[in-house]
Amino acid sequence: MTQETRQPRQTRLCRTFQTAPAAVPRENTAKYLDSGLGAEGFEAPDWLVPDIEDGTAPDMKSAGVENLLDRLPDRAPDFGGEIWPRVEWAHADADTRERGREQVETLLAEVGDHVDGVVVPKVGRREDVESALAAVAEAEREYGHPDGSIEVGVIVETAAAVSDLADIARLGSDDRLAGLVFGPVDYTADLGGRSMGGERPRWDGLLERLSNEASAGGLVAVGGPFDRLFDERAGVSYYNAPGYADQVEREARIGLDGSWSLHPKQTAQANRIHMPTPGELDTAVDRIEGFNEARGAGTGAVVLDGQMVDEATFRNFANTVATVRAIGDAHPAQTDAVYDADLRDRVRAVDLGFA
Amino acid sequence: MTQETRQPRQTRLCRTFQTAPAAVPRENTAKYLDSGLGAEGFEAPDWLVPDIEDGTAPDMKSAGVENLLDRLPDRAPDFGGEIWPRVEWAHADADTRERGREQVETLLAEVGDHVDGVVVPKVGRREDVESALAAVAEAEREYGHPDGSIEVGVIVETAAAVSDLADIARLGSDDRLAGLVFGPVDYTADLGGRSMGGERPRWDGLLERLSNEASAGGLVAVGGPFDRLFDERAGVSYYNAPGYADQVEREARIGLDGSWSLHPKQTAQANRIHMPTPGELDTAVDRIEGFNEARGAGTGAVVLDGQMVDEATFRNFANTVATVRAIGDAHPAQTDAVYDADLRDRVRAVDLGFA
Amino acid sequence: MTQETRQPRQTRLCRTFQTAPAAVPRENTAKYLDSGLGAEGFEAPDWLVPDIEDGTAPDMKSAGVENLLDRLPDRAPDFGGEIWPRVEWAHADADTRERGREQVETLLAEVGDHVDGVVVPKVGRREDVESALAAVAEAEREYGHPDGSIEVGVIVETAAAVSDLADIARLGSDDRLAGLVFGPVDYTADLGGRSMGGERPRWDGLLERLSNEASAGGLVAVGGPFDRLFDERAGVSYYNAPGYADQVEREARIGLDGSWSLHPKQTAQANRIHMPTPGELDTAVDRIEGFNEARGAGTGAVVLDGQMVDEATFRNFANTVATVRAIGDAHPAQTDAVYDADLRDRVRAVDLGFA
Repeated sequence: MTQETRQPRQTRLCRTFQTAPAAVPRENTAKYLDSGLGAEGFEAPDWLVPDIEDGTAPDMKSAGVENLLDRLPDRAPDFGGEIWPRVEWAHADADTRERGREQVETLLAEVGDHVDGVVVPKVGRREDVESALAAVAEAEREYGHPDGSIEVGVIVETAAAVSDLADIARLGSDDRLAGLVFGPVDYTADLGGRSMGGERPRWDGLLERLSNEASAGGLVAVGGPFDRLFDERAGVSYYNAPGYADQVEREARIGLDGSWSLHPKQTAQANRIHMPTPGELDTAVDRIEGFNEARGAGTGAVVLDGQMVDEATFRNFANTVATVRAIGDAHPAQTDAVYDADLRDRVRAVDLGFA
Repeated sequence: MTQETRQPRQTRLCRTFQTAPAAVPRENTAKYLDSGLGAEGFEAPDWLVPDIEDGTAPDMKSAGVENLLDRLPDRAPDFGGEIWPRVEWAHADADTRERGREQVETLLAEVGDHVDGVVVPKVGRREDVESALAAVAEAEREYGHPDGSIEVGVIVETAAAVSDLADIARLGSDDRLAGLVFGPVDYTADLGGRSMGGERPRWDGLLERLSNEASAGGLVAVGGPFDRLFDERAGVSYYNAPGYADQVEREARIGLDGSWSLHPKQTAQANRIHMPTPGELDTAVDRIEGFNEARGAGTGAVVLDGQMVDEATFRNFANTVATVRAIGDAHPAQTDAVYDADLRDRVRAVDLGFA
Repeated sequence: MTQETRQPRQTRLCRTFQTAPAAVPRENTAKYLDSGLGAEGFEAPDWLVPDIEDGTAPDMKSAGVENLLDRLPDRAPDFGGEIWPRVEWAHADADTRERGREQVETLLAEVGDHVDGVVVPKVGRREDVESALAAVAEAEREYGHPDGSIEVGVIVETAAAVSDLADIARLGSDDRLAGLVFGPVDYTADLGGRSMGGERPRWDGLLERLSNEASAGGLVAVGGPFDRLFDERAGVSYYNAPGYADQVEREARIGLDGSWSLHPKQTAQANRIHMPTPGELDTAVDRIEGFNEARGAGTGAVVLDGQMVDEATFRNFANTVATVRAIGDAHPAQTDAVYDADLRDRVRAVDLGFA
């Protein structure tokens, strides 16, 4: 089916996918959840992912759910980004799926208004993803949320899901499936891969496909976590800023929308790398302004710098501008820090409708 | 479906896919078209692709079509290679497709006898490719050309086309779809990829798949353009011969049939790299001669150098010989320069039928 | 369809896939077959693949079949691994397939009790693989072997097979298709690839997919042969141990189960690299013992080292243990050499049922 888009598609911002354990064995069991919800500036993630799955110990999972029920009503309204709890799920384990269904029900019953979507890990073939979508749809209906208001992101981390990747991405057309996130650790285990000589596979071919299928299906695509948070040289330990930036740049280069973050410093780096540079933004605004002006003059086809502006070209520029608008809405401190006031004004003023 | 080929399949030569703007703002607007049609020796491309799409400015597109109507009747008959105009098309823009349909109609109405096929860019999912094939079929019928005489090559440069690549390649069985060509610039943009630190993605995984699906579907496969035509070292600028040759060799290694050329020098290099070496040709002729001789002696299974020659082995050697015949037919100066007279005579004489 | 496994799946050991010509022009035409059947210690392969296809000259093929009929009844019962003859087959050549069918019939009629499966090379699209499976099923029925007792492994070495790879792997659910083996030489030829500047393509993207689809379909996956058996430095020739180990480690890293071996020394290396290390085994046994103890105490969900043990986790550990049991059954000298007696006892004693 040919897609024809007259308006830039709704901008789904996901430069950063920051997981935070929903409960930890500290005095304040919601320590990381609180810190994620209160992050400022570039440390504020686009998606905060309170983790009830592998990040929270089994005996703390109900505490994790409780923390969400307790914190979200007060704090979610002031949080700039989106909130996407990760529930339990496993295509190969019915008990785990049952717990996941209960977590989805509890969350949607109690704090569904403060949740943008649910992250579902360890999905299998298309049928399994469909059953996860159905579980969310059912709870959504049951607890009176508007149809499609609670979206789903899946972690792609099993051979079965990768085998069905194109079919799974096509489910995006129903507007509930919104994102594909890579999970390299479980994926490598599922394939029986081993870390030989300390080197782990990068799965470059798969990441290319993930980016492609997400684009084809209108979904966001996010890379996997980078866990060598700290490195050591000559006896001194330091935050591994270059290692993480290399991975995020590699992900940006092939068109992933965002990167997985395990730490506020990673969030700060990934937010910046996945943001249009001032030069990129300036060009986009220029072209759209020029296009709109020429259209206004009624000269038919519009040519800018010797190239006819068609819908595809226009849409690319419009997406850049819409992305910056979305960042500014969610995290004004970030746009203020990167673009000057004049450019920010033009971003607000320009008309993004292709007419 | 198992393919069984008793004769070497028709050799579709496409070592070089040279695009040339159909019109440029010069005194002679057909400057590059004329130079492509008149190229000699190794600078003569296998496929000359007069470009009415992105290579020709919007206000010159009708001049581009006019140039083709004007030049092809006189000059195409003496051109050794094939002529494949690139028309406008875009799976996501109906107006562009409409212009493309009109361009196809005009070309087939006026100069269809001088055109081997049409190159269709920015195709989407299989359905979109089918509608491009149907547009060409309709114009072909309308203007009285033999069924299937006007073929189609598509530029693979959208996420949608890559998602459907295997299905698209299978359309090759209808004998109108003849080639898959990679378009890395638009592809990277469609995925939202960015050139980080000056490095662009190479899309190695995709190129492997392109080569595979083209082979599975009986299509030619062509790599993307290399636009760093010139390089500079210590203040001196030079034609970037090593950079382009590296790319072409990488493409030949994974089985792409040809390379995209933007310049006669690139054409000269790619024609040579994608040509069997004298050693490769000599071996192929030897084996086929030996096989035919043994077959003539009626000894049943034929063994050469300890290996039984089956149809697959025979076909590989026959394809090498048929390729050289095709090059000699189209560009005798090229085969004269590379193979000695004795080898050329044997190429002409040997029987390629597997009986 | 979601797979739920309560017991560790039957462990199909295939660390090494050692091909041996079924007949060679020597005084003892079964020289390599005999040496494969009599290999000891780490030189004993998991799968011995007597080769009636490309490894045996055309005029010796019937001698090759005869050697199998002669040797297997006496020697197969004492051979620790599995025996998988490679017959002739080619999706693009009906005569070759007919010879393959006859070879399958002869083998199953005469020595079917001593054969674990049949390796089928040069398969094409899914339909071709289905017809190979049907040929084996028919001979199996005809000669009174239990249904499904003779399995099939296919060599993936054509564009057609790679195009259909996911569909082919799904045939694994019928329990006769058991393995996918990569054949890089024929594959490169089928795509028209060429060895430019001595460098051959590594097909990394394809190997990732092979590992994925094999895991998704419950099949074993094996890499391609490494033919630079010997290397030379400063006038001295030596067995290329590092070159082969590099390839095997690369294969283990991405989750291939085994590696192709052309020589007993390669077999010795690949057997060791694809074996769990003592540390990996110790961890697996520890976790399962701990899990079983906690389950016995009836405490509901079982948590070990802060992680809940679900079926997937349990199965991974159980597979490691089951693999070592299988190695010990087939090649006790190998486990004796690598694991100490205490660990071997715990491997035998531990209960692998997830209850």
